[in-house]
Amino acid sequence: MTRQGRVYLVGAGPGDPELLTLKAARLLREADVLLYDHLVNAELLKMVRPDCQLVPVGKRCGSHPVPQEQINDLLVHYGLQPLRVVRLKGGDPFVFGRGGEELQSLVDAGIAFEVVPGVSSALAAPAYAGIPVTHRQLAASFAVVTGHEATEKSEYVDWSAFAKVDTLVVLMGVKNRQSIARELMSLGRPEEMPVAFIQEATLGEQKVVLTNLNELATNPPAVSSPSVMVIGEVARFHQQFNWFVSEEHHSSGFTPVRELTAETPRNLSFPAGQSSSAEA
Amino acid sequence: MTRQGRVYLVGAGPGDPELLTLKAARLLREADVLLYDHLVNAELLKMVRPDCQLVPVGKRCGSHPVPQEQINDLLVHYGLQPLRVVRLKGGDPFVFGRGGEELQSLVDAGIAFEVVPGVSSALAAPAYAGIPVTHRQLAASFAVVTGHEATEKSEYVDWSAFAKVDTLVVLMGVKNRQSIARELMSLGRPEEMPVAFIQEATLGEQKVVLTNLNELATNPPAVSSPSVMVIGEVARFHQQFNWFVSEEHHSSGFTPVRELTAETPRNLSFPAGQSSSAEA
Repeated sequence: MTRQGRVYLVGAGPGDPELLTLKAARLLREADVLLYDHLVNAELLKMVRPDCQLVPVGKRCGSHPVPQEQINDLLVHYGLQPLRVVRLKGGDPFVFGRGGEELQSLVDAGIAFEVVPGVSSALAAPAYAGIPVTHRQLAASFAVVTGHEATEKSEYVDWSAFAKVDTLVVLMGVKNRQSIARELMSLGRPEEMPVAFIQEATLGEQKVVLTNLNELATNPPAVSSPSVMVIGEVARFHQQFNWFVSEEHHSSGFTPVRELTAETPRNLSFPAGQSSSAEA
Repeated sequence: MTRQGRVYLVGAGPGDPELLTLKAARLLREADVLLYDHLVNAELLKMVRPDCQLVPVGKRCGSHPVPQEQINDLLVHYGLQPLRVVRLKGGDPFVFGRGGEELQSLVDAGIAFEVVPGVSSALAAPAYAGIPVTHRQLAASFAVVTGHEATEKSEYVDWSAFAKVDTLVVLMGVKNRQSIARELMSLGRPEEMPVAFIQEATLGEQKVVLTNLNELATNPPAVSSPSVMVIGEVARFHQQFNWFVSEEHHSSGFTPVRELTAETPRNLSFPAGQSSSAEA
């Protein structure tokens, strides 16, 4: 128990509880109050002391989601007391986590805080699908963008900003995946550019769906939400570098091109419309 | 000791040993061989068993850097033996870590591997400087790019690709910071756009230098390497959200604009050419 309250804005990582940081694990053990959202693995909630107060604030907790303003108020409410308050957020707290808004409330109320970055699902999902977001020959940059604003507020996400970034990682893009693919092709991205969707990333249920922009625009494969969407040549590496035992699906639009290295045989075309289970 | 060898490509995080993941910590404890590069905190090397073989392969280890091809060969050499081999890389193994090339060598040699994502300094450095890379009102996207190719190989990094991405994080950009600023302004980025350099991010020696694009192009402040460079409106939040006790420097080109929220007073101009120590 500290004399003055302190709020820790902590990233919970992408799903696998072992991808939590040592610092986050220590803060969970020390927490007096834990506010957590729905993207946080339930296993992590077992790490707190028995007397720690658990406060679910996830948008999917029960039928009454907690509005952001109320989350901010709750943080201030607990932070003004002499408590160690952990605000646990899925992934990294500053990657589409509205962490900035929560800190603003704390600053305005004069409450001390710390930020503990976490492994972002924007990076962990590709890694667990064997997709390097950068690659010396193929990708000198990557961008991360939210896809859920794609259609309703197109002035918010300007897709032309990403026309030339090598690797594009889209979070919350499942619903608008078809329009995103159309938009990117209209901006000059080649229609055969590979696209990978990683569902339930880093968990035992992880599934990877491979397709390409044209297929995605014209005949989008079934993908469940949440998924991380990776658009770019590096997505091809999934077939070579996939190491995580999981189910795997290929859309008919994905034709693997193994011309990236001299060693790999060419024209290993993948049977259209089939699924395969992953190699371990 | 396993019957067949296995190589773990593990992210060590941005610097602070507590930002290691639980999984990485477990693998370090179990490792038979540890290959590590110079960006890895020396504290992490103490986590291995006494009989673990330590193999430094960092580009700055001694006067003879280990070429990438030799690192690949070493991984194959150890991976072909019945050993648990940990390849520990600074930050995240797929963010400019040449992880893809190392996996290619393992695939070609038929060696089993796993990838353990880490907290990338591209996200952790801004977080430790109180800079949210995304923000609901200011930044719906961010891009990460390497800056060390900026001048010598301008065809490799096409800066026009990033002209419209909200937040731009440049790794390895210190040497070319002046030309990067010029390039971005020529592409239409406003000259008063704030730029933050975070040196020795997440460590006790962390320093933040704030400036803007015009100042950086015409009279660049001193910045040591390695630093993470954050370009975008969100960099302004450093002044409000800085929570990490460290030294702090402001370039004369940085005029804080606290107009982002109704609550904060306007026109809090910062004395030109001065440094301040950070608030805790």
